[in-house]
Amino acid sequence: MTGNAVEKDRLLAFSDGVIAIIITIMVLELKVPHEATLEALTPVIPVFLTYVLSFVYVGIYWNTHHHFFHLVRHVDGLMLWANLNLLFWLSLLPFATGWMGENHFAPVPTAAYGIALLMPALAWYGLQSAIIRKEGKDSTLARAIGRDLKGKISPVLYLGGVLCSFLDTRIATAIYVLVALMWFIPDRRIERAIRRP
Amino acid sequence: MTGNAVEKDRLLAFSDGVIAIIITIMVLELKVPHEATLEALTPVIPVFLTYVLSFVYVGIYWNTHHHFFHLVRHVDGLMLWANLNLLFWLSLLPFATGWMGENHFAPVPTAAYGIALLMPALAWYGLQSAIIRKEGKDSTLARAIGRDLKGKISPVLYLGGVLCSFLDTRIATAIYVLVALMWFIPDRRIERAIRRP
Amino acid sequence: MTGNAVEKDRLLAFSDGVIAIIITIMVLELKVPHEATLEALTPVIPVFLTYVLSFVYVGIYWNTHHHFFHLVRHVDGLMLWANLNLLFWLSLLPFATGWMGENHFAPVPTAAYGIALLMPALAWYGLQSAIIRKEGKDSTLARAIGRDLKGKISPVLYLGGVLCSFLDTRIATAIYVLVALMWFIPDRRIERAIRRP
Amino acid sequence: MTGNAVEKDRLLAFSDGVIAIIITIMVLELKVPHEATLEALTPVIPVFLTYVLSFVYVGIYWNTHHHFFHLVRHVDGLMLWANLNLLFWLSLLPFATGWMGENHFAPVPTAAYGIALLMPALAWYGLQSAIIRKEGKDSTLARAIGRDLKGKISPVLYLGGVLCSFLDTRIATAIYVLVALMWFIPDRRIERAIRRP
Repeated sequence: MTGNAVEKDRLLAFSDGVIAIIITIMVLELKVPHEATLEALTPVIPVFLTYVLSFVYVGIYWNTHHHFFHLVRHVDGLMLWANLNLLFWLSLLPFATGWMGENHFAPVPTAAYGIALLMPALAWYGLQSAIIRKEGKDSTLARAIGRDLKGKISPVLYLGGVLCSFLDTRIATAIYVLVALMWFIPDRRIERAIRRP
Repeated sequence: MTGNAVEKDRLLAFSDGVIAIIITIMVLELKVPHEATLEALTPVIPVFLTYVLSFVYVGIYWNTHHHFFHLVRHVDGLMLWANLNLLFWLSLLPFATGWMGENHFAPVPTAAYGIALLMPALAWYGLQSAIIRKEGKDSTLARAIGRDLKGKISPVLYLGGVLCSFLDTRIATAIYVLVALMWFIPDRRIERAIRRP
Repeated sequence: MTGNAVEKDRLLAFSDGVIAIIITIMVLELKVPHEATLEALTPVIPVFLTYVLSFVYVGIYWNTHHHFFHLVRHVDGLMLWANLNLLFWLSLLPFATGWMGENHFAPVPTAAYGIALLMPALAWYGLQSAIIRKEGKDSTLARAIGRDLKGKISPVLYLGGVLCSFLDTRIATAIYVLVALMWFIPDRRIERAIRRP
Repeated sequence: MTGNAVEKDRLLAFSDGVIAIIITIMVLELKVPHEATLEALTPVIPVFLTYVLSFVYVGIYWNTHHHFFHLVRHVDGLMLWANLNLLFWLSLLPFATGWMGENHFAPVPTAAYGIALLMPALAWYGLQSAIIRKEGKDSTLARAIGRDLKGKISPVLYLGGVLCSFLDTRIATAIYVLVALMWFIPDRRIERAIRRP
């Protein structure tokens, strides 16, 4: 049915737009230094590193979104809102990125950053559930997701990072980097499912 | 006719772009605090709550826009301008959001926020009229809209909120939240009309 | 040929994106006042009025762009750059808008605003020439454009506005509003050409 | 296969969105002067000139991206990340543009600008390799790219610009302008390859 394809196209176009803007306004936190020396870049370094991490995270979400919706055949009202919910939490990432970067990985902002990663992860889980609810448990997508170990471990790890922030922010940051690396590898499950006829 | 489909596609793409940017620049009002304590987040809370409310409103407009244009078959010059008029008023929402949030729901900004909700509601009514004028009163869309009770009550409620702002801003805010909840439920009329052959 | 359709689609998508952002970042010049009184809005009024005017201008460019490319069949390298040239000059409109608005229509910013309107008008003329060069002088589009009186008069009027800025900025502003009104009416020539088989 | 076309469409839509935002937020570095005199524009001039140069560079990347993906038939996970890598480095251009412009082409920011041009050039090379790896060395695209002299010389020239920044920033800037001019001319190789059946 063409109507449904249009609905899905627009959901994707809107999501792409919002994600493109989120990924780009984060760079605005990199404030142009007023002096023209190399030393003037020193305070920008932690902000830059946080930007890299957040860019990778938003990139991962976009990639996974991209792969998932490839297999989605029907879009309904619940999915529209579950998707908006995901975009809402992702839109807070620039704030958390700026706070952690500007304060050189201090405990409270580092914990807040972990929560800013936890919330879209939960929202993603919600979106995934809304999709499976519509597609059915025997759909290609549901079977492709399978037990979804990565999706279930990530929130636990983010929570671990939040708690570790008050012990040693380096452990917390290491966890955030680790989860990013874990997701960095493209989701073979989906690619396999697409290739299967 | 393919030409008309292209026209509609572009109107939707442009609207999606503008709405995506509006929904995202609102988050820029959440200013990154300079201190790294939990207390530093306290002044951000009202700005955050206003952001949530405005995000939901813009999300509602996008969803309704999405549903409506699903049934639109012809795009003309009047509709292009009626649509731009809607986008114009929506573009003022970040300003009103920032003003109400930063001033912790003071009377004048709360009334201004109500007007910032009223204007796109009226613009929406104009867009709807432009569409029905083109599609005809017996079109699927016109019948799907029906008596449009929600669309007619909302402006009255916003006006009520504006007036209540000078009595007690909590009542005004409650009204704004209520109307959002009322629209939050996806428009069954349209979904039904799409399903019907 | 499908390849060419893709090329055109992407040119339109990119233009829509840039125009959507230009039209939206102009609203960032409306700085949220720190006080919560009606008087605090007074300095915002000229910025708001300039925003309205610039919004209408960008809307006109988008609408005309929309109508024109409807009839474009081939996209070449020259058109890509002529289009980027138009987008470049349009991207300076927010700067000119902010300068004129913040300085309450002072002579120099009002003249600068006129130049900011003149440059995209010339760039538009360039884009139009690049299109006709490719489509041919006997193409539907070339015939639809015809003598292009509006397109030829506008730059002269903008120049008039620039000069008048140093006599009385009210005359200059009146001219800018007038040209906007002149273009506001959708281009019947194109609509007629589309309808013709 | 339709699925692959959707994947490519979304990669292009997302890239167009990010590039459109990058090209537009650079204009935010043009700070509106508080005074209404012509002299108040003087400090804006170097920022403006840098903006023009960066706009042309981003325009070149968009144009080349546009031409390249025209011939890409398959999109895989590696290409998605190679593309995100390119967008990441392009997203730092506004920062480098602002720094060089505000400091009137001082040595360190001018060298930093050269690095900000070098990195996307390397990322582009990576993306090109990821595409050829998938398309095959005998594909239309691989043959169209050929020996890719321009692509190989550019990074060397950027590096030369970086080094020259510490001798005379005018030489460095001249090199950056030169490379831009070299790419400005649309890539005939690709256009020829498209036309060939």
